[in-house]
Amino acid sequence: MPGNSFGQAFRYTTWGESHGPEIGCVLDGVPPGIALKESDIQVWLDKRRPGQSKYTTQRKEPDTVRIVSGVFEGQTTGTPLALVIENRDVRSKDYGDIADKFRPGHADMTYWAKYGLRDPRGGGRSSARETAMRVAAGAAARKVLDHVLGEGVRIRGALVQMGPHRIDRDAWDWDAIEANPFWCPDAKAAKAWEKYLDGIRKAGSSIGAVIEVVASGVPAGLGEPVYDKLDADLAKAMMSINAVKSVEIGAGLEAATLSGEDNADEMRMKDGKIAFLSNQAGGILGGISTGQDVVARFAVKPTSSILTPRKTVDRFGQETDIVTKGRHDPCVGIRAVPVGEAMMAIVLADHVLRHRAQCG
Amino acid sequence: MPGNSFGQAFRYTTWGESHGPEIGCVLDGVPPGIALKESDIQVWLDKRRPGQSKYTTQRKEPDTVRIVSGVFEGQTTGTPLALVIENRDVRSKDYGDIADKFRPGHADMTYWAKYGLRDPRGGGRSSARETAMRVAAGAAARKVLDHVLGEGVRIRGALVQMGPHRIDRDAWDWDAIEANPFWCPDAKAAKAWEKYLDGIRKAGSSIGAVIEVVASGVPAGLGEPVYDKLDADLAKAMMSINAVKSVEIGAGLEAATLSGEDNADEMRMKDGKIAFLSNQAGGILGGISTGQDVVARFAVKPTSSILTPRKTVDRFGQETDIVTKGRHDPCVGIRAVPVGEAMMAIVLADHVLRHRAQCG
Amino acid sequence: MPGNSFGQAFRYTTWGESHGPEIGCVLDGVPPGIALKESDIQVWLDKRRPGQSKYTTQRKEPDTVRIVSGVFEGQTTGTPLALVIENRDVRSKDYGDIADKFRPGHADMTYWAKYGLRDPRGGGRSSARETAMRVAAGAAARKVLDHVLGEGVRIRGALVQMGPHRIDRDAWDWDAIEANPFWCPDAKAAKAWEKYLDGIRKAGSSIGAVIEVVASGVPAGLGEPVYDKLDADLAKAMMSINAVKSVEIGAGLEAATLSGEDNADEMRMKDGKIAFLSNQAGGILGGISTGQDVVARFAVKPTSSILTPRKTVDRFGQETDIVTKGRHDPCVGIRAVPVGEAMMAIVLADHVLRHRAQCG
Amino acid sequence: MPGNSFGQAFRYTTWGESHGPEIGCVLDGVPPGIALKESDIQVWLDKRRPGQSKYTTQRKEPDTVRIVSGVFEGQTTGTPLALVIENRDVRSKDYGDIADKFRPGHADMTYWAKYGLRDPRGGGRSSARETAMRVAAGAAARKVLDHVLGEGVRIRGALVQMGPHRIDRDAWDWDAIEANPFWCPDAKAAKAWEKYLDGIRKAGSSIGAVIEVVASGVPAGLGEPVYDKLDADLAKAMMSINAVKSVEIGAGLEAATLSGEDNADEMRMKDGKIAFLSNQAGGILGGISTGQDVVARFAVKPTSSILTPRKTVDRFGQETDIVTKGRHDPCVGIRAVPVGEAMMAIVLADHVLRHRAQCG
Repeated sequence: MPGNSFGQAFRYTTWGESHGPEIGCVLDGVPPGIALKESDIQVWLDKRRPGQSKYTTQRKEPDTVRIVSGVFEGQTTGTPLALVIENRDVRSKDYGDIADKFRPGHADMTYWAKYGLRDPRGGGRSSARETAMRVAAGAAARKVLDHVLGEGVRIRGALVQMGPHRIDRDAWDWDAIEANPFWCPDAKAAKAWEKYLDGIRKAGSSIGAVIEVVASGVPAGLGEPVYDKLDADLAKAMMSINAVKSVEIGAGLEAATLSGEDNADEMRMKDGKIAFLSNQAGGILGGISTGQDVVARFAVKPTSSILTPRKTVDRFGQETDIVTKGRHDPCVGIRAVPVGEAMMAIVLADHVLRHRAQCG
Repeated sequence: MPGNSFGQAFRYTTWGESHGPEIGCVLDGVPPGIALKESDIQVWLDKRRPGQSKYTTQRKEPDTVRIVSGVFEGQTTGTPLALVIENRDVRSKDYGDIADKFRPGHADMTYWAKYGLRDPRGGGRSSARETAMRVAAGAAARKVLDHVLGEGVRIRGALVQMGPHRIDRDAWDWDAIEANPFWCPDAKAAKAWEKYLDGIRKAGSSIGAVIEVVASGVPAGLGEPVYDKLDADLAKAMMSINAVKSVEIGAGLEAATLSGEDNADEMRMKDGKIAFLSNQAGGILGGISTGQDVVARFAVKPTSSILTPRKTVDRFGQETDIVTKGRHDPCVGIRAVPVGEAMMAIVLADHVLRHRAQCG
Repeated sequence: MPGNSFGQAFRYTTWGESHGPEIGCVLDGVPPGIALKESDIQVWLDKRRPGQSKYTTQRKEPDTVRIVSGVFEGQTTGTPLALVIENRDVRSKDYGDIADKFRPGHADMTYWAKYGLRDPRGGGRSSARETAMRVAAGAAARKVLDHVLGEGVRIRGALVQMGPHRIDRDAWDWDAIEANPFWCPDAKAAKAWEKYLDGIRKAGSSIGAVIEVVASGVPAGLGEPVYDKLDADLAKAMMSINAVKSVEIGAGLEAATLSGEDNADEMRMKDGKIAFLSNQAGGILGGISTGQDVVARFAVKPTSSILTPRKTVDRFGQETDIVTKGRHDPCVGIRAVPVGEAMMAIVLADHVLRHRAQCG
Repeated sequence: MPGNSFGQAFRYTTWGESHGPEIGCVLDGVPPGIALKESDIQVWLDKRRPGQSKYTTQRKEPDTVRIVSGVFEGQTTGTPLALVIENRDVRSKDYGDIADKFRPGHADMTYWAKYGLRDPRGGGRSSARETAMRVAAGAAARKVLDHVLGEGVRIRGALVQMGPHRIDRDAWDWDAIEANPFWCPDAKAAKAWEKYLDGIRKAGSSIGAVIEVVASGVPAGLGEPVYDKLDADLAKAMMSINAVKSVEIGAGLEAATLSGEDNADEMRMKDGKIAFLSNQAGGILGGISTGQDVVARFAVKPTSSILTPRKTVDRFGQETDIVTKGRHDPCVGIRAVPVGEAMMAIVLADHVLRHRAQCG
């Protein structure tokens, strides 16, 4: 009933606030006998870590993960895997100004409405800081996929749109994503975005973005109709990430404009296996994976913390203005890339285990 | 673990295949003491029922619902509410041709891949026939909302785009939606769509659409961060509907192109309550309702059953072609409108009950 | 959150009241490809069916089960398996007298306290009529066990105590249980019980009983520590049966009086496998099956419907007396035997599927 | 699907092994606005803490709890409450001897069978060390009960039988339980037990026990028929505690020997409320609380760690003998008293929240 867990067979729960002593997660259902060490998780956390370029928040967090349960002599034991990260760069006074005011676009007003009180330090529980544990859980999920499916699954994310600027899809190069600070697969676009985002950053403004996550090597048959369809669970997973406002699968919103002839991915045989001639479906039909690439896309709204004053009210019902100082990202979509990858890994790991419960 | 249930506090489970003897659902968690009779549910089923215009499938189903459990002397008792609809217009031989072939865009291939066998009669479990039970459950959900919140919530859906043709948002008129066969809130657009869809229907083709569902009167405070956020559960609910390929909340995909200044819904006080000056958020911040209209939008792909032959394979691994005869909708998006409304009602009912578990 | 479902991977939900039109259940998670027909379920329902001897209620119910979803051409499809039984012998007027009075020992007062209203016809939802659907679900569970484990598991129940009269355990003969109306494994005891229970029946009184359920052929490794241990789930399953007041595993309550030396089941090797020299544990250690017989025992209280007047109150707060006329069983424990077997099958089926989710 | 969580509306998950760096739990669903500090939890942990008399294990653990999430300025915020205890007295070498051998009565063999590997240090995850987190969660559950029900509920446990020696129920004195090392409510019996248990301890043997837990002040109406009945959930909760082999509610096993006349708790009115004349039901009818004391009882088997050699096998399939040296309790039932209390509190807190979801 409460909402801090995700998944069913691969189930994890997170805790921790932005400026509390630690954030953590416990993963239940991890198969036994998987080789797992802290560095296997750290590598993904390092990818998400703030403060790596001028385009992301300057909060300094080493994000060093510790495994405190569930591994013995380097192997998962099948008992709960618990992961903990200490919060280091806690500057509560930066946020003192907003203890009483509701920042527009933030969850301040709604946490207040729901719970009657809130931890205002850095957004408390609603801070994107929580996504570090999603990335940690995602690292474990990748290990589960490798363990069960033999290392066949590859999950990669990319920033495909910043503000109004889309990448050129014909220029897509996965190798490019590590070579620019945006995880952009189009090197030329990335170049242009640098200047564009610099302008936004200097103006104390912010901009939205679109992220695409692709999982290749996913076997056909994953997904649990008619409510826990693979695409339904992906939609939930992606929409649960901070600041996400849309989720698309395959052709997505464009599917509305397609004719039945253009939308139906035709099939032929190739090397004794079914081969699709296109992938409008994004690798999912009837809520079940087809064996093609699973393609999910989500839009992230612009950071709500900006330097232009905005009209708001405070918790005493007084009208006021607010300027959000402190550390922030001009385009939170950038750091959402590894988070989106993690959620894809988590959903797939959950469905791989769920599938074998019923279908062996 | 299996996937045929939805919700936690207001939880329902459906069963039944397109051409089996019946479809049904059981709703658990319905509060006791709600006046409920079959006609309260029937009115919503009638809205969704096929065969009401030339634009929807000609299958003739009265869709008469029976309450077989959970109501005593006209009131819900708090025990499981079970609803059943008999399937009448079952023409299994229409589908004999596709018993072995996988229809592109349909779930034939994936059910086969997942389960190793499938009920091919009318799509079996993957048929949109199942959505009748969503509408029935949605009718009960509306009653729950009225019971708990005092009839303040109003949920309405509309077709806002057919193929490439969008409505004029300035012409939005809720009264118009009952006056055309598309649930279109723009009377002029509806007129144009008639001709457009006629052409598609006569060509044996199909087209996609976009549906918008708006819930007004939703109190602030609903949603369970950080995984069962209200928007995350709405995304799952909408994406689980047959043929849906995208879900948006508020500004949705457009949020990617907005600046922080334009995206932040500013706040003022009005009549002692917080009043937002815009609703880019679609009524949800941090996964919790703000008190504004909750706005969800989803794209439906074109019907995969078309008269143009498509390349495919059969279950024996042979390449072949297929033409999908039989009854079908040229734009399944039309009948998705009441289904989307139902899912909105279900998600809200679930969250209203979940909220009072924790917060009283 | 609501409570009308049981299990996680093999999950079922029941509905229906004692004197409503039907009772039913939907089972989700049943593996595909299992041969299943109505007679496979009917055989177990016939065993439980009322009115088969003078020792059980004279309600005449054919209890004919119909499969309305989830089977195609004689095989389970992996989609929800829905089962329905029509109520035939509905004599609502027999119970009119108790519409306002709370019968001591029955759930009348508590349903009233919880829901504020209740269906008084034959106990409504709290009637043991619901257990018919447990038996139906149990029949499906046995099929799942056979399917996954190769027909190795055998589940049998027996009445081992009636009132103060225990069986002679040295005289235990499984063949005897079908030869007397009590499912008693001690033929001599059964003989004595006939006279004993006749006296109770004629006096309009009732008596309690103890049932033992034994599952042999259960592989080692089933159970999900530390909360969904196999014994914990069995305790819940058995205690959820109407009128049950205790559950024991293996030595059970007697374990309190044992020394560590006597309680520890020693191990040797036999034919290359671990062989235990005793089974005080009842086949479960640390919440996980050992490979020995799983042994559960539960006590059933005497039927609360008796002919001697009892002091009570009515729903208006008035003191009164009540005599429960109508049909009833002098020893409801008898009909609890097949229900206990069914719950054992259901718990094992659920854990077999859960185990393979995590451990393959 | 995995099993390390308990509860639905008040849901908690634990992690940690006996000799790992820490044990912890995360509680989700705790209502906001409850005053909570570490000492509120510590007081209950201190009650359970080992090494307080010669009758319990000599492991030295301060069991100092830290709240690492979910409390701000002394109040719960409604976000996950996370609690952590560092393990201090970790002597892994004491257990080196048993790395390969399966101790009879312990979970060594079954964890091996289930997971294919195990953490043998002090029993790893199967150690009773985990119960410290149950006690911590139970402390939070008590706060929830007070918050929702106005401090009316009181939960107390007692040891009512040690080996064959039962207390004199007429001598029951709740004040006595704090005055002896056994939580025994019969001062005279406690005296006799000292000598009895001393003998067992010196012989390197062990003995079982029976614990009774009583909750008074529980309102009528808690419990979710027909599977999550209050007694069913209590049975599961108690049976999930290490070494428990039976659970009884009210008259329990004795109910089998009662007549319907003796078992039915008659009702009268007293001060405008229903008053029962007896409590054979243990405060639960039809799975729902009656308003009387909720009475649960469970038997704990003797500690399996004893100094007499026992026959066993090792993980290589070799027959061998084993003597369990190291620290242990001659009667683990003693330390199970606060754990049983905690589980009662947890089940009640969960049901209080679940009840208000459906019934307001």
